Amino acid sequence: MRTAIVLFDRFTALDAVGPYETMSRIPGAETVFVAERTGPVRNDTGSLALTADRTLADVPDPDVVVVPGGPGQDAQMGNETLLDWLRAADAASTWTTSLCSGSLLLAAAGLLSGRRATSHWLALDLLKGYGAEPTGERVVTDGKYVTAAGVSSGIDMGLTLVGRIAGDEHAQAVQLLTEYDPQPPYDAGSPDKAPAYLVEEFRTRNRFILN
Amino acid sequence: MRTAIVLFDRFTALDAVGPYETMSRIPGAETVFVAERTGPVRNDTGSLALTADRTLADVPDPDVVVVPGGPGQDAQMGNETLLDWLRAADAASTWTTSLCSGSLLLAAAGLLSGRRATSHWLALDLLKGYGAEPTGERVVTDGKYVTAAGVSSGIDMGLTLVGRIAGDEHAQAVQLLTEYDPQPPYDAGSPDKAPAYLVEEFRTRNRFILN
Repeated sequence: MRTAIVLFDRFTALDAVGPYETMSRIPGAETVFVAERTGPVRNDTGSLALTADRTLADVPDPDVVVVPGGPGQDAQMGNETLLDWLRAADAASTWTTSLCSGSLLLAAAGLLSGRRATSHWLALDLLKGYGAEPTGERVVTDGKYVTAAGVSSGIDMGLTLVGRIAGDEHAQAVQLLTEYDPQPPYDAGSPDKAPAYLVEEFRTRNRFILN
Repeated sequence: MRTAIVLFDRFTALDAVGPYETMSRIPGAETVFVAERTGPVRNDTGSLALTADRTLADVPDPDVVVVPGGPGQDAQMGNETLLDWLRAADAASTWTTSLCSGSLLLAAAGLLSGRRATSHWLALDLLKGYGAEPTGERVVTDGKYVTAAGVSSGIDMGLTLVGRIAGDEHAQAVQLLTEYDPQPPYDAGSPDKAPAYLVEEFRTRNRFILN
C-alpha cells in the first residue's frame, strides 16, 4: 500500500505530519512525500522544510492520496499540473483524503461535487462554490473521500483511517505508541468554543496566518 | 526570541512538528531547526526528512531549546557534541524543553538531576537513572524545564508554552487557528487507557517502533 502526501509551497506542516505520523505506521505501508519537484518544500512560515522525495509524475497511482492545506493552497487552485494529478490519482485510489484547506484543492479538481466534506473552519463555506456540502464535523467520510478540519485534525483523521485500513486494534496500538491522550491547556479549539471576539478577528482577516 | 528545535537521525517527526506548529506562532518568534550538520535529517521510519537550516554551532544561545525524541535518541546518549551544546544552550536559555524520549537527552546532559520530568511512557522509568523524578503527567514544568510525554503531547506542551510566553489569549488564538479540538476515534492514548495486552506487548519489545 502506497500513501502519497502532497507538498506545495507554504503548506501547513502539522497538516502533513499529523496524518503522516499515524498512517505511516500501517503495516506494509509505504509513505512518500510528493511535489511538483523533488527537494525541500517550505511551509507557511518559511522556517520549516519537508523533503519531497518523489515528483507527482513519479507516483501516478498511490493507494491513498493525502492533501494538506495551508496559506499556500490558494496559489495552487489554478495549478493544472497538480489538479490533473489529483484527478488521475483519484481515479485509481482506494482513499482520497485532505486536511484543512486541502479539501479546496480536491474540490477544485472536481472531486467533491455532491459530496459531504469539511475544511478549516475559516474555509468551510468556500466548499459550496464547488458543489460540495460542507459539514462541521471534524472528520468527514463520504465513500472513499475523507476530509478533515483544520491543522491538528489530521491526527484524528489518520487514526480513523488506520482503523479502517488495518483494524481497530492496530489503530489503538498507534494511538498508544504516539501517546495520543490529548489534554489541551485551553478549550478554544473550535469557533463554537473559542471566545467570540477571537473568532470574529480571524473572520475579518483575509488569510489565517498568525505570527 | 529564538527557538531552536534539535534534529538528529531517526527522530520522531510529530515530536518536532507539534511544538513547532504552536510555538512558531508566538509573536516575534524565530524558530530554527538545528542539527550537527545542515541539510535533511531523516525520521524514525526514514520516509520523512526535515531540513536543519543551521548547525548546533550556528545557534549557541537560543532562548528556547526543544529536544524531540524517537528511536534515534538512544544513539545520541553518548554524543558529546550534542550534550555539550545542550549544556551550553541551557546555561543561557529561558526555557529548556523536550518531547517524548528527548527528556533522556536532557537527563544525559545532566540537566534534569533532582527535577520532576516526564517522557514517553515506555521510557519514563529510565529518567530515574539520571537523578530525575519521573511523573506521569502529560506536560511537566519544573522551573524553566518543561518536559512532555510521548509524540503527540508536544501540541499540549507547545500551547502551554505559548500561554506562558505570549499570554493565554494568544495561546487560545493559536489553538483556534490550528483547530485543536481533539476527537480521537479511540480511547487508547495512555497505558492506563489502552487494552492491557497492547501495553504489555509494547513493554516486552526493545524499542517503540511499530511498522
